[in-house]
Formats: sequence, C-alpha cells, structure tokens
Amino acid sequence: MTDVMTPTTAAANDDGHTVDVAALGELLLGNWADVRRTARALAGDPELHKVEGLSHTEHRQRAFKQLGILVQKEAVHRAFPSRLGGSDDHGGNVAGFEELVIADPSVQIKAGVQWGLFGSAVMHLGSTEHQDKWLPGIMSLDIPGCFAMTEIGHGSDVASIATTATYDPASEEFVINTPFRAAWKEFIGNAAVDGLAAVVFAQLITRGVNHGVHAFYVELRDPATKEFRPGIDGLDDNIKGGLNGIDNGRLCFTNVRIPRTNLLNRYGDVTADGTYSSPIASPGRRFFTMLGTLVQGRVSLNGAAVAASKVALKIAIQYATERRQFNAASDTEEVVLMDYQRHQRRLLPLLATTYAASFAHEQLLVKFDGVFSGAHDSDEDRQDLETLAAALKSMTTWHALDTLQECREACGGAGFMVENRFTSLRADLDIYATFEGDNTVLLQLVAKRLLADYSKEFRNLDFGVLARFVVGQAADITLNKTGLRQVAQFVADSGSAQKSAKVLKDEETQHELLAGRVQSMVAEVAAALKEAAKLPKDKGAEIFNAHQDELIEAARAHAELLQWEAFTEALHRVDDAGTKRVLTRLRDLFGLGLIEKHLDWYLMNGRISMQRARTLGPYINRLLAKLRPHALDLVDAFGYGPEHLRATIATGIERERQDEARDYYRKKRASSDGPVDEKVLIQKAKASAKK
Amino acid sequence: MTDVMTPTTAAANDDGHTVDVAALGELLLGNWADVRRTARALAGDPELHKVEGLSHTEHRQRAFKQLGILVQKEAVHRAFPSRLGGSDDHGGNVAGFEELVIADPSVQIKAGVQWGLFGSAVMHLGSTEHQDKWLPGIMSLDIPGCFAMTEIGHGSDVASIATTATYDPASEEFVINTPFRAAWKEFIGNAAVDGLAAVVFAQLITRGVNHGVHAFYVELRDPATKEFRPGIDGLDDNIKGGLNGIDNGRLCFTNVRIPRTNLLNRYGDVTADGTYSSPIASPGRRFFTMLGTLVQGRVSLNGAAVAASKVALKIAIQYATERRQFNAASDTEEVVLMDYQRHQRRLLPLLATTYAASFAHEQLLVKFDGVFSGAHDSDEDRQDLETLAAALKSMTTWHALDTLQECREACGGAGFMVENRFTSLRADLDIYATFEGDNTVLLQLVAKRLLADYSKEFRNLDFGVLARFVVGQAADITLNKTGLRQVAQFVADSGSAQKSAKVLKDEETQHELLAGRVQSMVAEVAAALKEAAKLPKDKGAEIFNAHQDELIEAARAHAELLQWEAFTEALHRVDDAGTKRVLTRLRDLFGLGLIEKHLDWYLMNGRISMQRARTLGPYINRLLAKLRPHALDLVDAFGYGPEHLRATIATGIERERQDEARDYYRKKRASSDGPVDEKVLIQKAKASAKK
Repeated sequence: MTDVMTPTTAAANDDGHTVDVAALGELLLGNWADVRRTARALAGDPELHKVEGLSHTEHRQRAFKQLGILVQKEAVHRAFPSRLGGSDDHGGNVAGFEELVIADPSVQIKAGVQWGLFGSAVMHLGSTEHQDKWLPGIMSLDIPGCFAMTEIGHGSDVASIATTATYDPASEEFVINTPFRAAWKEFIGNAAVDGLAAVVFAQLITRGVNHGVHAFYVELRDPATKEFRPGIDGLDDNIKGGLNGIDNGRLCFTNVRIPRTNLLNRYGDVTADGTYSSPIASPGRRFFTMLGTLVQGRVSLNGAAVAASKVALKIAIQYATERRQFNAASDTEEVVLMDYQRHQRRLLPLLATTYAASFAHEQLLVKFDGVFSGAHDSDEDRQDLETLAAALKSMTTWHALDTLQECREACGGAGFMVENRFTSLRADLDIYATFEGDNTVLLQLVAKRLLADYSKEFRNLDFGVLARFVVGQAADITLNKTGLRQVAQFVADSGSAQKSAKVLKDEETQHELLAGRVQSMVAEVAAALKEAAKLPKDKGAEIFNAHQDELIEAARAHAELLQWEAFTEALHRVDDAGTKRVLTRLRDLFGLGLIEKHLDWYLMNGRISMQRARTLGPYINRLLAKLRPHALDLVDAFGYGPEHLRATIATGIERERQDEARDYYRKKRASSDGPVDEKVLIQKAKASAKK
Repeated sequence: MTDVMTPTTAAANDDGHTVDVAALGELLLGNWADVRRTARALAGDPELHKVEGLSHTEHRQRAFKQLGILVQKEAVHRAFPSRLGGSDDHGGNVAGFEELVIADPSVQIKAGVQWGLFGSAVMHLGSTEHQDKWLPGIMSLDIPGCFAMTEIGHGSDVASIATTATYDPASEEFVINTPFRAAWKEFIGNAAVDGLAAVVFAQLITRGVNHGVHAFYVELRDPATKEFRPGIDGLDDNIKGGLNGIDNGRLCFTNVRIPRTNLLNRYGDVTADGTYSSPIASPGRRFFTMLGTLVQGRVSLNGAAVAASKVALKIAIQYATERRQFNAASDTEEVVLMDYQRHQRRLLPLLATTYAASFAHEQLLVKFDGVFSGAHDSDEDRQDLETLAAALKSMTTWHALDTLQECREACGGAGFMVENRFTSLRADLDIYATFEGDNTVLLQLVAKRLLADYSKEFRNLDFGVLARFVVGQAADITLNKTGLRQVAQFVADSGSAQKSAKVLKDEETQHELLAGRVQSMVAEVAAALKEAAKLPKDKGAEIFNAHQDELIEAARAHAELLQWEAFTEALHRVDDAGTKRVLTRLRDLFGLGLIEKHLDWYLMNGRISMQRARTLGPYINRLLAKLRPHALDLVDAFGYGPEHLRATIATGIERERQDEARDYYRKKRASSDGPVDEKVLIQKAKASAKK
C-alpha cells in the first residue's frame, strides 16, 4: 500500500494484508517472461514511440523506419525457421510482439502485417523453396509486403472473395484478376506505399474447376521505381480512425500473370498441365486449414489488448490515488478520487477483468505454442485453439476499448489530453474489435462450437455465418476441451439457507453459476434450433436468425467462463498468503461482477433467489472497499515503467501539486493574514444574534 | 420503405404501414424548425466543414476563420440584446448552435467558447455598461476571448477554485493572482493562441473577507503584438483526443492589476472604498445564480449530441440496408446486414433512444427558452431547468458515444475510415461526457434533487459533491416539476393474468414500471441516508459514500423516465396513422429496452414475474423485426442531406457495387463458361457413386 487515503477510509479498510508486487508481477509475465522483459525494454526505447500530431504520411514513414529497428534488434524473427535465422519459437514470438503495442500500436500492427501475416503466409502456406526464396528478404524488410485477402465486398466471408487466379497451361502462368469493383482488395496494410509484393488470396481455377481460395505470391511494385507493375492498380485508404502509421490501401489486378510456381502450394498445387492436387480432399477442410494461420493474429491482438488495458489502468488508478476533489468528510481535506465508491465501481471491476483476461491470454498463448510448435497439433487441438482465440479475442478487444474510455473519463479533462495516452491508444485499438475477425462473427463461431459440442446434430449446421466456419470441422471427433463443458446441474436457489450474497464468494458456487448458465443457454437455443436443421435452407435460416442474438450471448457467457477459470487457475498457483487473499477478492469481484451483470438471467431462471439477489450489489460494494487499499499494488504488478506509461498524470505531478496547494492553505489557516470566508462571518453573525 | 430486403424477411414483416417521412421530419425539427433549417443550410457549406488530417495548428487557424464566417452569416448573435444587433432569442440561438456540430464539432465548441461562454458571461454577469463596452467586439470577433473558470486543481468543484482577486482601495484595482500551480486556469479554449481577453473566475477578497467566486474581465494579450500582457503567462494544451480546432491552454496570473470596474458586477459589487454588496444575500445562492448561465452550454451539448447520433445512425443504417454478407437463406443471394437479428439488436435500440433523446431535448430547449427569455424564470423554473439539463446532458452525451462506436463497428473496416465520419465525430464528442459538467457529477446533482423532492430533511444535505450544488437552493419551495414524481404504486406482478411480455406494450404499464422504479430507488436510498444527515460530517460522509452508486443509478433511472415521457408526449402529437403505429413501436422498443436493461431490478423487487420476464427478450426481438422495414424511413426523417452526412458509404456506392457483383454472378450462372465449383463436383460424384 503506497498511496495516501483519507483517514476514515484507510482505517475502515486496511485489512493488514500485503501484496507481494514482485511475485505477482512474475506470475503475470507468465511462461515467456524473459521474452516479455526483452520486448518491454525495446518498447521503452523512444525511437519506437508514437509521436503524436504527425501527419499520416509522416507517421507512415516513421513506422516504416521503426520496422527497420525491429529487424536490427532481432525482435521479430522468433517464429521463423532456425535455418533462416529464426528460432522456431511461436509462443515467444507472439509474446514479444504484443508488447510492441505500448510503443505504438501502428508499429505492432505494421510489424504484424509484414511478419505475422505476409511472412507467416509464405512460411505456412508455401513450400521449403518458397521459404528459402522469399523469407530472407521478408525477414530483413528488403521485401515489404501485403496480406491481400479482404475485399471491399467480402471481409468476414473470406470464402466468397471474388478475385480469380485462373491457370493458363499454355504459358504455365496464373492470371490474377479483379472481376468487379467489390472485388478490389481493401484495407490492405503496406498496399498504399511500401508493399513490393503481396500474398494474394484468390479463387484458384484450373481446367474449368474452381478449387476455392488459395494464396499466391505476387510482385506489386518495381523495387527501383516503386511504381506498380503492369496490370496492378491501387488506391490509398488515406486517414483512418487510428493506426495511421500503416499505409492501408486498395489493390486491383487486371489479368496479372504470375509463374505457376508462385502458388503457395502446401495445401494445393497445380502441375504444369493444369492438374490440381491437394493433400486435403475436402475443399472445406482445406480452406480452413489454410486460414488456420490467421489465428496467430487473433492471439497477438488478444495480448496487445490486455497490455493496453494494463497501461490504461495503471495511469488512471495512479491518478485516482493522488487527485482530490470535493471535501466530503471534513472542512479542509478533500477526498482522493479512489475513495469514492463510484470511482471504485468504475475502475476496479475493469481491473479484475484485466487480470482475468491476462491469465486467460497466457493459456491461449500456451495452446497456440503447442499447436504451432507441433507439440500438440491434433485436429482437436487446432479446433480448441480456434475456439479459444475467437472467444477471448472478442472479449478482450472490447474490454480494452471500454477500459480506455472509462479511464479517460475517470481522469476528466486530463484524460482527454493526448499526452495522457488514453485517447491515442483508444483510437488505435478501435479497429481491433473488427479486424482479424469481426468480434460479432467470432462469437458466432464460438456459438457454433458450443452447439456442436452440445449435440451431434448441429455439427453440420449450414446457415450463413456459421456455415463458413464449420464446414472444415471433422464431424466425428469428440469436442470437449475448450468447447462446452458438461458441468453444472440445474440447482434452483431455494433461498432456504443463508440468504445473503456471501455464499457466492464460494469458488465452486461461482463456477456452478457461470458454467450452468452457459450450458442452460446453449440447451435452450439448441432446442429452438433443432427443427431448423431439418427444414429447407430458407426456412431454417429464418428460425436461425430469430435466435442469433441468444446464440451470441451464449458464446459470450462461455468466454466469460473461460476467463473466470483462467483467473481461478492462476490463483491456485499463488503461495504468498497476502497476495492470495487480495487476488481472491479480485477474482470474486470478477465472478460476482459477471453474476451481477447477468442477474436478470439468474433470477428469471430461479438460480438466485430474490432475497439473495438484493444483497449482491451491496456485497460487491464492500468488496470494492476492501480492494481499494491494494489498487495501486495491483496495477504496479503489471510492471510497466515510466518509459511505457509516458503519461504526465502518472508521474506523481498531481500529488506534488495537491501537496503544494494543501500546504498553502494549511499555512493560511495557521496564520492570521488569510481572508475570512463570508459564509463564516454570516454563521458567526447568526450565532451571536441568537445569544 | 425504400430499401430492398431478402424476400422472406420482407414478406414476414411488411405490415402495410407507411411512415410520413416529411411530417415526422417536421415533428423532429420542433419549435425552432426555421432556425434549424437555416443553420443546417449553413452547416452544409464546405467552408465550414472539418478537413481531416490537418495538423492541430492548421485546424485551429481554419476554425478561427470559420468563426469569422459565422459572424458574417449572422449565425451566432441570436441570444444577444437587440440594442446591440442581437435578437434576444435564447432558444433559437441554442437550436442554431447545436446544428454546427455536423459541420465540425470544433466550430461548434469554439463558437460556444466565444459567444456561449465568454460573451454570455459578459451579458449575464455584467452591467449594461459592460455589455455596451465589450459585447460589440465580442460579437464581431474583434475580441476573441476565454472563459477562464476551470483550474488544474478544480474542475467539478468550482467553488474551490484558488485564483484570487484582491481589492486594493489605494489604486481602486483588483489584483488577480494564481497562488500555486494547481490554480493555473486549465483547458481554457482560446487561451493558447487567439484569446485577447478573458472572463476570469476568482475568489473576490475585499477588506479581509472572501466573498466567493466572481467573474472579472481581464485583458490577456496586446491586440497588436498578440503577446501576453505583463504578469500573464500561459501554456499550450497542445494536441487533444479531439476538438483540435480549439486552442486550449493554461493561464497563470501574477498579481495582474485590473480596474475595479472590470468586476462583472450584476450579482456582487465593490465600491471604490472596498465595500462589498450584492443583491443576493446568501453566498451560496449568489454562487449558483452566477453559475446558472452555464446551463446554456449543457443544453447545447445535449442538442449537439442528439444531432451527431442522428447523423451516425443515418450513415450506418443506410449502409446496413445495402451491404450484404453471407448467404444464409439461399445459395446465391447474400443477406443484407439489416436483416440479421443481431444487427437489428445493435442499431435499432440506439435509434429508439435517439428519438427519445431528440424529443426530450426539445422539451429542455423550451424550458431553457422560458427561463432565459424571462417568460418563466421563477426559482423553481431555474431549478427545474438545472435538473433537466443535468439529467439529459449526461444521458445524451454518453448515448452519442455509444452510438458512434456501435455504428463504427457495425460498418466494420469501412466504419474505421475517417471519410465515413464515425471515428472523427466520436473523437471530437468524447469530451462532451466530462466538460460543461462531468456526467457522473451531474447525475449526483440530479440525485440530490430527487432526495430533496422525496423528503424535506434532505434539502440541506451537505456531503461532498452534492453540497456544492445545493447550497443555493431555496429550502422551502415545492419542487415537483422535473424532480421526483409521486406516481407509481407498488404493484407486484402476480403473474396471475396474462404471462407474456405483451402486456408491457401498454403505455400506462410502461410508465408505471419506469416511474415506480425511480420512486422506489429513491425511497430506498433515502431510508439508508436518513441517519447520515444527523451524524457528524465524517461519519455521515462515510454512509453517504457507501450509497453513492445507488444514488447515481437512481438519477439515471429518472433521466430515462424523462426521455420516455418526452417520447410519449411527442407520440401523442402524431396524426398520421401509419407514422403513429411505427413510432409507437419505436417508443415501445425504447421503453421495453429500458425494462430489459434493468430486468434484474424488476425481478428482484417482484415487479415482473419470472414467467413474464422470460418472454421479454423474444418479444423485443419480434418488435425489432417489425421495425426493420421502416428503419430507413426513420433515419431519413432526421432530414440530413449528403452535405451533412459526407460519408462515402452513405452515398449508395455500396449498393452499386453489390449490384454489379450480383449481376456478374447472375450472368456467369446463366452462361456456361463459368468454372464449376469443386464442391459441386464432389457432391455430384458422391451422388453418382450411390446410384
């Protein structure tokens, strides 16, 4: 406990527990602690920091230079093959990557485009020859490149992209073509200025058959002149709501011819005479295997969103323990913001969620590393990874936006100044909610998995959004790892035992309530959809659409459960008693906060009695008051230094100013030369009139 | 109904009703329809539009020039006295003002600083001589000026600002001084560059007595050199999260001497020998009377937030009726976004709230005009106005941010492009939630009023935030206009009658539920706080703080009720049957949406039975489907043209592109030269193998 509180609050809530900040910090750093430390040291380098107020063209130039620094510092090659100078370290690569967000989200995302998407596509979809040919230039940034998948007309529905790659056996070339305006590649990073090449996703057509979406390596610009090569056209996406260090743009191909061997052919190849072959017979599974490499982006966005939330909360909570406003409890002493119940209500639940998201992210990263290292890469593992990444990425990126906004407002006008980071980070992270998988679409992917786990009949469900994501799933394997867990029994709250919310602090009870809700929601939707699967497509789709909202809410409930479980699992690894006590309260705040958020559901399904429900809010308020003395320790454990925070209001300057002001008034009161307050005179006059 | 829907949805939901868009548009334009039309014509002028990507210094220069255009077009003088060229039209002035937000929020706010704050302060706090001396220059922009109230150390708690104005009878001057760093004036518009003068708020001290905060006219810069006058220092606030057309800055005064007559002396004066006098005996009431002029800012922010929400929804809903993604219902036709249940869930409740906010704003504007024109300006009227403005401003400015964000996400990557307005408007409007009264503080002011209306004993409540706002309230007048309405009886939902949510579409029932909740929440907090009022200040403050969250929620519930009532009142003025039917559904969506949002409360207090509660979600979903065919009409009624929307995705280009693509595929299917899908071949192969 390092901050000063008003005496009454401190006395009431000092519980004698202390948090071992250093040990908690280690726990948060997780399995790739050393990589994170190295990456944070790098992210603290002013050369990599965002400079506010640059024009978008200046910002782009700076970001490009910063990518060069990352190459030089060997910060971005961990995932690449060791034979090419990488270290085959997938988990570490992402861990290091996500820390870059605190230097400048544009650097993180532009690096993500270059190495995480463009480079990864060559690595994962190409052959050894492709890797040897292009990866060195990609790794060294000699070939800045694009990942040209999304089109104006199709973002979430990748299978429907319209760019064609038609094989011409006469010249042994593929002809890349954009058939209409909606098929222009859109929002493509590096496309407007820097990209010399691109991995272009297109429908592979040979011998009159469309074999679906495949990836092709296409040279875009002449390295010498930086002019587009013949047949290629582009447009600059110009200024965006954020991430203006990245030169997004549009690309159009007019019968651009590329060698047959530029097809990244790991999952599908065409011989010189135009014969197509693939190691994966099912076009659906083939598509999803190729897209599987995208999961890395979701994993790293999840981690970056956690990092941004941590930075925001450290700044806002630091300020809230120094800033004073209004003298509630005494005539002279103003109250520190963090002592106001509402301020605790605004910030501490976000802190609890950030802890949950951080621990859940670590689990995701371990899963990701297992799959990508090949240690655990069964179909089931891959599907678990997809589901987990989809669930967590949507929760965490939204959470980061909520956190940045609440922190900004909690700091008032100071929060709006760009020097205090919130608005800038929020603008940059805004798009995290809809790129690399639109959150709303991702939750439907999770929902599909929940239905499939719930009952076999939903395994081949074929309506709209869901259809696109599940065709490739094996229909007969057992899915139960990160999918639906059959846990909770329906237990109505009889209200006969203890009637307060206190019983909800029991870990098992929290789990039962959260897990039971997921199961029950899924069962309810499943019952409603049972008929839909058997009906003609249009009728089925109608019923399906009538339950879309419920489905998404079920997926959200599931994601919340995963976060709660990850938090609880981490809690069990804490030894220090004080830390464990405080962290348990924080976990309880997270769990009870979820139950409070969905209290209507618990009530209308009889899981929590009216009496108990009424005590939940007050119980949470008491929990907040108990956590308040540890708030600063809990954000200090995130381990970010001034070089990462870079926020004027987190430097201690507010306390200095407040102390100076309080000192001034204290001296005025002690001396007799200060003016008397008119109100005081009036009170005195009234008093003497009464005598 | 002007948009195309997928056949099934259209057939299922076309109810034969039509909205009279023009008439509904008139209803929305309200009492100052002509002023709004004029202002919108002006706001459509490209000269006044925000240019994206300017540096903050360029943006400032542009905004300053734009203020000149406003003067030239006579757009900003309506509130000033007719003898000086104004037209004493307060309601019309604000109505015209708030429309400027759609040109560029920086223009609206910079104009607000110049004429709404700086000019208004001279007009309302100064004498006729002050008006005659300074208003002409302020109106013509010859004297750009500041409203220097907020300090680094005190924003919400204005009474505690530390700048002093000490009267020196020897020279007949006031000495303005900044005693310490926290007392620097901060976030002051026009302070960094343009301001030649300022109305400075400071503690008036004469003859050893501090008479509290008063306003002083201070010349800041030499008009010729633009250099600060001696004793004045400043800092540039530099780049902000938005509103970068405004040159906010800090100001510091080191014993700056101004003539005695520069005290704006309407509510407090000092004679040459230093004798203080005021027409208002109570220092508290005097303070609140002086601050009363601030309400205009809140009113106009409320209106601007409504306007921004309307623009955002028009853009997003237009796009959602054209954009297609995923083919749920057929193999060839993709579904229009607006037909997805989740998309309806995301946008239509925001549309309903925007209608409610718009009608409520009109009531606020009428109230404001009544008070400021002098037609209805009793103490009670003024207090009603304060409460109404505080309640609505907080709800509406938050709503605008939610709406802009949801619209941005609902448009995916396109929503993130600055050319589509959402991100830019959101960045600019972010600060609306905490300036001109922090929303969280404003809701506490509303709560205080609710308590005072509930029971006399709370009229003089003196804890923290609340104390500051209520000292000036007369303790003995009847408060019941916009305060708490004693309406609802406690009626438990017996569940014995019809058990579905359908009964909730009854207007009286909605009102009873919403009003009953407010009353019940207030009564509950009041019971808990009863003791606090009698305890010593520190103990009382502790109890008070333990209920701060409940208090704020009660205020929010009250504000929601006010919006619902305004919507319902407007509904009763609609004659056209089709319009009335559709608008009633929209109002029901608003009302039932509120009940759904607070369903936990209704359940745990026995107001809605478990059975009925379970039918509410599905009922709302059906309501959404019924409203969907009218969505475009409902946003068209807002009356904004392309010159106001200025969003590429709202120009119809998405439909053009989609039509082109669908045409391409239709022709491919009709001809035989298109490639066959591999999946189709596999299906055929399977089918023939079975034979």
